[in-house]
Amino acid sequence: MNSATTSPTTGLIEADAVIIGAGPVGLFQVFELGLLEIKAHVIDSLAAVGGQCVELYPDKPIYDIPAVPSCTGQELTDNLLKQIAPFNPTFHLGQEVTVVERRDDGRFNVETSAGTRFVTKTIFIAAGVGSFQARTLKVDGIDAFDNSQLFYRVKDPALFEGKNLVICGGGDSALDWALNFVGKAESVVLLHRREDFRAAPASVAKMKALCDDYEMQLLIGQASGFEVDAAGKLNHLKVTALDGVTRRVPLDMLLVFYGLTPKLGPIADWGLDIERRQLKVQSTEKFETNVPGIFAVGDINTYPGKKKLILSGFHEAALAAFGAAPYIFPDKKIHMQYTTTSPKLHKVLGVESPVFD
Amino acid sequence: MNSATTSPTTGLIEADAVIIGAGPVGLFQVFELGLLEIKAHVIDSLAAVGGQCVELYPDKPIYDIPAVPSCTGQELTDNLLKQIAPFNPTFHLGQEVTVVERRDDGRFNVETSAGTRFVTKTIFIAAGVGSFQARTLKVDGIDAFDNSQLFYRVKDPALFEGKNLVICGGGDSALDWALNFVGKAESVVLLHRREDFRAAPASVAKMKALCDDYEMQLLIGQASGFEVDAAGKLNHLKVTALDGVTRRVPLDMLLVFYGLTPKLGPIADWGLDIERRQLKVQSTEKFETNVPGIFAVGDINTYPGKKKLILSGFHEAALAAFGAAPYIFPDKKIHMQYTTTSPKLHKVLGVESPVFD
Repeated sequence: MNSATTSPTTGLIEADAVIIGAGPVGLFQVFELGLLEIKAHVIDSLAAVGGQCVELYPDKPIYDIPAVPSCTGQELTDNLLKQIAPFNPTFHLGQEVTVVERRDDGRFNVETSAGTRFVTKTIFIAAGVGSFQARTLKVDGIDAFDNSQLFYRVKDPALFEGKNLVICGGGDSALDWALNFVGKAESVVLLHRREDFRAAPASVAKMKALCDDYEMQLLIGQASGFEVDAAGKLNHLKVTALDGVTRRVPLDMLLVFYGLTPKLGPIADWGLDIERRQLKVQSTEKFETNVPGIFAVGDINTYPGKKKLILSGFHEAALAAFGAAPYIFPDKKIHMQYTTTSPKLHKVLGVESPVFD
Repeated sequence: MNSATTSPTTGLIEADAVIIGAGPVGLFQVFELGLLEIKAHVIDSLAAVGGQCVELYPDKPIYDIPAVPSCTGQELTDNLLKQIAPFNPTFHLGQEVTVVERRDDGRFNVETSAGTRFVTKTIFIAAGVGSFQARTLKVDGIDAFDNSQLFYRVKDPALFEGKNLVICGGGDSALDWALNFVGKAESVVLLHRREDFRAAPASVAKMKALCDDYEMQLLIGQASGFEVDAAGKLNHLKVTALDGVTRRVPLDMLLVFYGLTPKLGPIADWGLDIERRQLKVQSTEKFETNVPGIFAVGDINTYPGKKKLILSGFHEAALAAFGAAPYIFPDKKIHMQYTTTSPKLHKVLGVESPVFD
């Protein structure tokens, strides 16, 4: 966090621009704003920058970034970070934007799940397919135990030691944690809906060997209900097997690893025009949403002809920056300048300005 | 030229797509068409690919190509050539498109100044600021001597040997040719409008030394008229000096080097909507001009919000390719696919398709 922009009394960050999403388009939005001398704060729900590109295919080559014959998602991200370094953006990672509301002074209040608070003149939503959230367990009423007995991630492993655990899922996360807790938890039951596992074969083999040794137990079936004790504590999970028989499985803690799924999440509540889970922009001139001062760029927006291409997001980020500039500099006339020839842009980029003939 | 697409009897090239302009956007248009399995022919008035980028700033860094922190115009061009290599475009360089006309079958006849003839389903105009043409001498009626006694470039130096030459201009081309013809031509007069020269100081010093030795002559002034002999041949140039006095300078040949200037040229005659020397596109959905089948991308087009950025041209090229596909494959449904994950695109790109989990 950049202390220079943080008010010491309120903890409020006064910003010109807040970018939601640190994927390639969010990162390039920093660049285009930087050329116009607008400093940006970037928020992402993931713990690292790069968004979908890094989360889903860090090592798989992308071939259609113009003038980059081939690069991986990680390389694309690294190059963009290098490109925006002169503009020194402030990143707020591992937190989701929960609140966006218009203030009386025309600016916006923005708050994140980590409690970071901003007052900003403009917002750029570059959230791609939305934030990546854990797929939840579909059992009526079980969400009442979220973060007390039902968990979708392990933050503190000590919390689960000595407990009777049921771990749901068939991928690497489920298997890895099941294997990890054998011997540390009182008991470990792995629950998966079918015999096939997506997890690494070696992990599956190890799990089966531990089951043969009665160190843990594998159940094939689906969670279909639960029971609570007199104190209202979750004490049994009901599991319906493929043969239709339902069993009661005793437990203290339930861990669910059904993978990540992109969700529009709180964005849906900010009064923005939404069409098929995408944000409609008013024009392809500025890529501004129906809320003046909030722009949408990259995969999350939609307009006639929209293609979900990274290169289109780059173009949108450039035009959105120009569209936003009047909110930040109401009295300044913004001129387009070229990075090749503009001494002013060379100064903001921190490069030497050659003498031109 | 690709003989596979040339009809041996007529010399006509049957094409799906003709791209006018081999600058960065024209080159990337090849890529976007290639992903849709549309082969392109590329025409440029310059003798090399790269357009304005290579012609005007081959060695000056560009900083705003997304994910490319810095590259020169030449590097940008080289990377684009590498990127489009799998699609094997056919280049027709050093020739200007002179004719574009609609045929009865809905396709277009296209002809170039070199006599290359195409029949094509679609045209992509990526001509930037237009073709680079020599700035002409502004003397009423003198264009009658174009290519007989008045020249804007030297193709065959032998043509000028033994002749009385007047060479106009103050840049490197004028000085270099003046120095070159001293001793070969009967006489050399350099005519420049002022005492300052844009040419390299060493060339200017050499020129002045030759003038001191009466090997050539320097006149400061402007061509203001001419005289012809009984046969209608140009035999004197009238030169008005800064003091207002007009002199008659005898000559056989007149060489003018006033630099290159971008001209819309013949494009202005193809029935396209033009606004301030730019081609208006119907929508930002396809970047199609008012003539169905003719698309305009990059600096030459205009639409609300247009910024003359290379990255915008890349986006426009992508959407124009999708917009053009129905003209080429009227019965095929075009699906957007991603280069990262599509085995079909991996095949057209000639890269190995990894096994995905």
